[in-house]
Amino acid sequence: MGIKTREQYLNSLRNMSPNIYKFGELIEDVTTHPATKRVVESHAMNFDASNDLELEKIYTTKSSFTGDKIHRWNSMMQSSDDLIANMKLKRQNFRRTGSCTGGVCVGWNAFNVMWAVTKEIDEEYGSKLQERLKNWILHAQKEGLTVAGALTDAKGDRSLKPSKQTDLDANLRTIEVKEKGIIIHGAKLMIAGTAASQEIFILPGGSYREEDKDFAIACVVPRDIEGLTIIEATRPSDRRDLESSSGYEVPDTGATQGLLFFENVFVPNDRVFMAGEYKYTSNLIQYFTANYRACIGACVSGQGDVMVGASTLMARANGLSSKTFMDKLINMSINNQVNYGLGAGACALGTKHTSGSFFADPQTAHTNKVMVSTLPYETKRLTQEIGGGIVETGCMPSYKDFTNPEYGELIKKYYKAGNCSAETRYKIARLSEWLTIGGGVPGCMHGGGSPDGARLVVRFTTPFEEYVDYAKKIMKIDEEVPEPKK
Amino acid sequence: MGIKTREQYLNSLRNMSPNIYKFGELIEDVTTHPATKRVVESHAMNFDASNDLELEKIYTTKSSFTGDKIHRWNSMMQSSDDLIANMKLKRQNFRRTGSCTGGVCVGWNAFNVMWAVTKEIDEEYGSKLQERLKNWILHAQKEGLTVAGALTDAKGDRSLKPSKQTDLDANLRTIEVKEKGIIIHGAKLMIAGTAASQEIFILPGGSYREEDKDFAIACVVPRDIEGLTIIEATRPSDRRDLESSSGYEVPDTGATQGLLFFENVFVPNDRVFMAGEYKYTSNLIQYFTANYRACIGACVSGQGDVMVGASTLMARANGLSSKTFMDKLINMSINNQVNYGLGAGACALGTKHTSGSFFADPQTAHTNKVMVSTLPYETKRLTQEIGGGIVETGCMPSYKDFTNPEYGELIKKYYKAGNCSAETRYKIARLSEWLTIGGGVPGCMHGGGSPDGARLVVRFTTPFEEYVDYAKKIMKIDEEVPEPKK
Amino acid sequence: MGIKTREQYLNSLRNMSPNIYKFGELIEDVTTHPATKRVVESHAMNFDASNDLELEKIYTTKSSFTGDKIHRWNSMMQSSDDLIANMKLKRQNFRRTGSCTGGVCVGWNAFNVMWAVTKEIDEEYGSKLQERLKNWILHAQKEGLTVAGALTDAKGDRSLKPSKQTDLDANLRTIEVKEKGIIIHGAKLMIAGTAASQEIFILPGGSYREEDKDFAIACVVPRDIEGLTIIEATRPSDRRDLESSSGYEVPDTGATQGLLFFENVFVPNDRVFMAGEYKYTSNLIQYFTANYRACIGACVSGQGDVMVGASTLMARANGLSSKTFMDKLINMSINNQVNYGLGAGACALGTKHTSGSFFADPQTAHTNKVMVSTLPYETKRLTQEIGGGIVETGCMPSYKDFTNPEYGELIKKYYKAGNCSAETRYKIARLSEWLTIGGGVPGCMHGGGSPDGARLVVRFTTPFEEYVDYAKKIMKIDEEVPEPKK
Amino acid sequence: MGIKTREQYLNSLRNMSPNIYKFGELIEDVTTHPATKRVVESHAMNFDASNDLELEKIYTTKSSFTGDKIHRWNSMMQSSDDLIANMKLKRQNFRRTGSCTGGVCVGWNAFNVMWAVTKEIDEEYGSKLQERLKNWILHAQKEGLTVAGALTDAKGDRSLKPSKQTDLDANLRTIEVKEKGIIIHGAKLMIAGTAASQEIFILPGGSYREEDKDFAIACVVPRDIEGLTIIEATRPSDRRDLESSSGYEVPDTGATQGLLFFENVFVPNDRVFMAGEYKYTSNLIQYFTANYRACIGACVSGQGDVMVGASTLMARANGLSSKTFMDKLINMSINNQVNYGLGAGACALGTKHTSGSFFADPQTAHTNKVMVSTLPYETKRLTQEIGGGIVETGCMPSYKDFTNPEYGELIKKYYKAGNCSAETRYKIARLSEWLTIGGGVPGCMHGGGSPDGARLVVRFTTPFEEYVDYAKKIMKIDEEVPEPKK
Repeated sequence: MGIKTREQYLNSLRNMSPNIYKFGELIEDVTTHPATKRVVESHAMNFDASNDLELEKIYTTKSSFTGDKIHRWNSMMQSSDDLIANMKLKRQNFRRTGSCTGGVCVGWNAFNVMWAVTKEIDEEYGSKLQERLKNWILHAQKEGLTVAGALTDAKGDRSLKPSKQTDLDANLRTIEVKEKGIIIHGAKLMIAGTAASQEIFILPGGSYREEDKDFAIACVVPRDIEGLTIIEATRPSDRRDLESSSGYEVPDTGATQGLLFFENVFVPNDRVFMAGEYKYTSNLIQYFTANYRACIGACVSGQGDVMVGASTLMARANGLSSKTFMDKLINMSINNQVNYGLGAGACALGTKHTSGSFFADPQTAHTNKVMVSTLPYETKRLTQEIGGGIVETGCMPSYKDFTNPEYGELIKKYYKAGNCSAETRYKIARLSEWLTIGGGVPGCMHGGGSPDGARLVVRFTTPFEEYVDYAKKIMKIDEEVPEPKK
Repeated sequence: MGIKTREQYLNSLRNMSPNIYKFGELIEDVTTHPATKRVVESHAMNFDASNDLELEKIYTTKSSFTGDKIHRWNSMMQSSDDLIANMKLKRQNFRRTGSCTGGVCVGWNAFNVMWAVTKEIDEEYGSKLQERLKNWILHAQKEGLTVAGALTDAKGDRSLKPSKQTDLDANLRTIEVKEKGIIIHGAKLMIAGTAASQEIFILPGGSYREEDKDFAIACVVPRDIEGLTIIEATRPSDRRDLESSSGYEVPDTGATQGLLFFENVFVPNDRVFMAGEYKYTSNLIQYFTANYRACIGACVSGQGDVMVGASTLMARANGLSSKTFMDKLINMSINNQVNYGLGAGACALGTKHTSGSFFADPQTAHTNKVMVSTLPYETKRLTQEIGGGIVETGCMPSYKDFTNPEYGELIKKYYKAGNCSAETRYKIARLSEWLTIGGGVPGCMHGGGSPDGARLVVRFTTPFEEYVDYAKKIMKIDEEVPEPKK
Repeated sequence: MGIKTREQYLNSLRNMSPNIYKFGELIEDVTTHPATKRVVESHAMNFDASNDLELEKIYTTKSSFTGDKIHRWNSMMQSSDDLIANMKLKRQNFRRTGSCTGGVCVGWNAFNVMWAVTKEIDEEYGSKLQERLKNWILHAQKEGLTVAGALTDAKGDRSLKPSKQTDLDANLRTIEVKEKGIIIHGAKLMIAGTAASQEIFILPGGSYREEDKDFAIACVVPRDIEGLTIIEATRPSDRRDLESSSGYEVPDTGATQGLLFFENVFVPNDRVFMAGEYKYTSNLIQYFTANYRACIGACVSGQGDVMVGASTLMARANGLSSKTFMDKLINMSINNQVNYGLGAGACALGTKHTSGSFFADPQTAHTNKVMVSTLPYETKRLTQEIGGGIVETGCMPSYKDFTNPEYGELIKKYYKAGNCSAETRYKIARLSEWLTIGGGVPGCMHGGGSPDGARLVVRFTTPFEEYVDYAKKIMKIDEEVPEPKK
Repeated sequence: MGIKTREQYLNSLRNMSPNIYKFGELIEDVTTHPATKRVVESHAMNFDASNDLELEKIYTTKSSFTGDKIHRWNSMMQSSDDLIANMKLKRQNFRRTGSCTGGVCVGWNAFNVMWAVTKEIDEEYGSKLQERLKNWILHAQKEGLTVAGALTDAKGDRSLKPSKQTDLDANLRTIEVKEKGIIIHGAKLMIAGTAASQEIFILPGGSYREEDKDFAIACVVPRDIEGLTIIEATRPSDRRDLESSSGYEVPDTGATQGLLFFENVFVPNDRVFMAGEYKYTSNLIQYFTANYRACIGACVSGQGDVMVGASTLMARANGLSSKTFMDKLINMSINNQVNYGLGAGACALGTKHTSGSFFADPQTAHTNKVMVSTLPYETKRLTQEIGGGIVETGCMPSYKDFTNPEYGELIKKYYKAGNCSAETRYKIARLSEWLTIGGGVPGCMHGGGSPDGARLVVRFTTPFEEYVDYAKKIMKIDEEVPEPKK
């Protein structure tokens, strides 16, 4: 059965070998350690949803291979509607957690992209990579796995290709090809949600030429594979997570970004889907970013929905009608819907690959990436504007002070404002703060790549000379008007 | 055969009775008079496209009734893809004409909306309105008609309902119900493209209650029906259209907006699809605006494409590489693709009516309306920034001066700049001017209704209380936080 | 006496030789010809103001040379307050005319800039240029002259320096130095307000090196000097100006932009203030743009004030309370005040030249230029949003139709909306149209140079390395962090 | 001597009684405790500057009373230049500390405002309040005091006036008037920089009527006055401040916001400058906000300068040329200069009070407040865009991990990118993070009041009817066009 429960999921995580560190400490149980339990909880809620009568239509679907019911995030995406279903799941996730569920996001996209890429490779080389991949997908569907994904390499000197780096480890590479598998070495940085994942799908971080073929690696590994060490990054407000009173200052959900160090990791052949076929890295990146940047609009709109909710509440907790801020709330809703609707448009304008995979329209998807790196910032600004000073700069004491036996009552006395207790006002203000300058801030700027990269794609997908011809025809201009020679 | 040629179309227009005025003059032949020939040319190009091997896939389709090949603008829209096909046609139109082809836009949407509304009415009243409509649609498909649409009434005092106006004619109304038809009286204002149309589809301009049932009118009339007088409005640069040298200052294409005065116009029953069924005006407006505001993104993106082309050309004509302005050109392209992709998203997120008609998602469509009333202004601003002073404020002499026997050569001498003749530079600059502050400016602000109206729809389609609940659940807040009592 | 009346001014214009053309026609009397009477009226109103008890404090001042009362636009600007007084006059001008009074703008700045530049030249060369200039200023003050200014050359191929152009006339140049004066030849393009001016102050259009010294020309000539031909440019709506009913469609005020062709024009030495001293063209341009771009904020804010007024009126004429649009009106007012206040800030942060002239702070002034090329576009967009469709795309008939004996009454019947006559509503809508897409659109984008030029100045006045040091000190970073070598 | 040294200042703080708490702990020595030492260091740097040959011209001036050299922040502001000098100091402060020096900001403005208000009161009541104030100012100048200021009350239910609150303490109030002074009770919230101050100047938080006269209080108290308890608020990243490795993650400078609880605090008469004169609270608020909101542009531009510096560095540390991001850096610089120049404009357009105090122009100052709550958000967004993922979401491990004996070297290996060590790259990324989503985020949204409050002032200082008249005159409209009656 492809549908797992929260408990099955948590048990599975508990059974893994510890290899994640934060603040110098090895995390023995990711499901209870304060540094990782929030990201795990965010993903555990996906399993709740898969088993919820109302939400299961979003969170589950049928396997295109077996017809079995499976978690949606383990499914093939083979139509515009499948991509939009991905978006719906993501928006819902953010609405319920206020944060990123990175452990069911990159990996999902990765195996769908590889479905197309392995077909292309197989067609040239007569290999059987797609079949390998299919076997792994069937396994993932059956086990209901949460599969993180990893693309970004350490990169080293940005002006040099991987094979020209002083330190060749700056990009993850194959250091040895063995009969039964490959040995990989290097790092993947800024990887979301691994603490909540059971496996990690690895893709190359760029588009490579022949001299860089050792870096053309796609494979999938258990999160606790031997030789892999994960260090969780620190975010502005994550020390709060460690405190006993954290439930009042920080939600029970959350996200993580981590550093993955691979030291001589052996990956058996049946989990390797690209190892040297550099020619296909370019398509791989194109397919991946098109889908990823189409669907990312759903993440930020989902978090935007929570900001709309938090701001509405915040107004009331401050003793004001939320209608006072209706113009701003409408603007927030518009921002959310631009990012979401434009993502859906990228899906609707997409094309089907011969393998059956469906890819969003690149120009629209990358346009949305630019919007995703702009509009949520305005939404956050409005959240702070509506919320007042206690949201903007955390003009509130810690929960430790709030409950201090000596002066805690004084604080509560003076923080009472609207039709609710000082404590409720406190929690809402902390939520707005967390969403806008705390740990809830999602990586909408660089997650999935930089906006400048997206602008480049827009540039190269805009047919400037065709547009020049329209202008000339409209004015009946026959003369050539060339670029100046310089 | 439902596909007509340019000549058939022009002949049909020539055969109509003259009832259009401009500058105090009755226009005898709309196909040659300088006040209307540009809008006719814009629509004649649709017929060229329908008969063009490459463009016919955009401009034609099969009738869902007969299976015959018909002009796309005469077709039923019954899926997300049908709506997106509408958008593709619109974008293409603007690319080729630089302007609005209003004569194939509102009417097309109108009969599709009425397909659903007549079904709803028939179901309640047992009437046969949908069949009537079907007959007319078959006629339109067979004749390959260009059908304008008319919604906006004169309205009079905005604070009063139609039946409370001092002058009841302020909204088009039924003044008599006869056995064979109805007699209507009043005006429809700001109606696009009627001079290029053969028929005009009339819809009610608002959502009405019982006391206003006389204003609940949907019907279709020949453009030259007895009792109808049309006055074309004047735009900033349309006096140029009248001059013999106009081809150098103004494109051969263009748009019109007109005033329609109905004086005791008799409409026979087989062309009447609503006459008093006020209860359905609300749905009618909802369906209409959802589709209209989804697809309008295609218009402004098509014109934006021409602005990108004109600006690229303008840079070169000024002697500069267009790459100098690449950042601005990319921003323009992004603006275009937001409006287009968001429209496509509204289509993709739409729903199918039981009648078979397909309607775009209101929240996304109205969000796009807000974007459509914002982003093209920035695109125009960038067109002026790239083009230089000669574009912005028309710092160029008239074509009459440009060709003046005495000093015309001096002008040409001094207007030569880039790798092209002074005349070509002149024409490109005029195009950019026309697109940004001349007759080419489309009604992206109020066409299809005001942005504030759209914001209201966004407000009422945003589930604020649901979002409040997400925020509360995330922070485990159980307490009620009501709006202040005031 | 340095204060002239409207009549004295108009008489002076009437006494000049005709050398201005438009639409192929020589304009005999600029004060009555429909192509120029509006710009003359705009400037005549300055003389009214100078003789008005309330406005004279803005429009007049005392000569720093003689102590006599003079028109403010003939005065020296030698303090921050003097520059701000310039701004106040400009804002007031726009408020009363809705348009540009270019004939008292560039010339005023030009002689103040040359006051500093001639001092610098005199100090190096021992010349007496400043004294020459003083004599001319005394003459201008005494006669109360309206002095236009001309900088922009035709330029030809932008990638080549003036002396490298195929056609050397592409930039105005000295073709012969005679004992009593110089002979100049070439063109100045896009020159504002010359039809309303008595003299034209000429400055070089760029910063030149030795090989281009023939182009380093500063001098002042009567507008009707022998050898000078002026062609007025055409703007989108200026054919309306020619019609007898123009008063209803277009204000009585207005602006012009013209082409100035100099053919072997002799300028006597006492009117020449730079002829070859190329080394000082760089300072000249710097001084000029700093002051010009500081004060230009006052122009656009003044016109913005009229847009606020027109929009308030328009709401009422449409039958709506202006309070409905209060948020938008406040945004418009904020835009106006940013441009005005930032200009005032540039003045306040300016510096005094050793000559006594006062120059605005370049970084702030050029920052304002960028704002001036952005914010008024948003103000115009809001004017169109508030005004409704009849403002945006001129969805109103011509005045000729409005008063047509046959159907004019019908038009009036249907255009009545608010608490005013249809005619008043008509005029307000035309004003809003004229301000936003008609002849009232000021050259806020390229007037005084391009925004990209301003961005360059911001770049070179921002001390990046100093800011890097602040960042390093804050984090106690000692290590060098150089730019990558490539 | 009015100029103190860093050591004198720190000693003075050390000699005060402890009354500040954070995280449940009483802070014994604010100069060394990790929760307060950063804000103290920020202010100590002011004393360094006052004694620095280059900076003293910004940080010191002459007393208008005694002619003695004093710290600038103890001086009277009696001209536009004095206000601009305030701005220069603030920009410089932010450049050197990256953060707010609230302890020399509100208090400085407060006593200057009271200089005017006490004169007004004295004139009506024949009191000698201004003389009292003068004595205190002389004392502050002589001792070189750092004087924080406190306006914002707890407020309670925003819909009720102070005297109508259930809990009268919701606004600070006089609970008893004694012969030698007054006894005050209540709270002031969100008060900046008190931990670094020696005294706190208290002003009323609103404009009051007679029934609220008990809340009309202006006085000044030592920070450690009996009955006053201060609780420091917590910001997202301030737990980092407490760690031993904090120097690598957080600057040595910083800001604090605190809660001030006054319990039966006795203030002797010679320190009371308003106690019940409610009529003058309205002027007081007007004067205060005009100056405060003019000068606040200098704070955010100073911090913006640091963001420009950090971003330039960040690009290099990532191995890229900062020129790659030149467009973004120029936009950041423009944002900074708009806020700064517009503030200077508000000063330049200000007016002199009969008391000698000088107040900025309200319309311009409040316009700047709106800009200050908008532009820095864009500057922060650009800082994150340039910086890459490690800046945006803190995709970097803690310093504890960075130096971990087991895997620290691995982290450093993979974080090396540009021409600098991994450690330097780490620190710069932390700085950018701190500036944009960490403790360095200044209160530019609500500091000095909400932007909506500022918009209200813009509304009431915009003469809409005067602008309506301009529009009417331009179109020669005589008819009245009233607001609709409703």
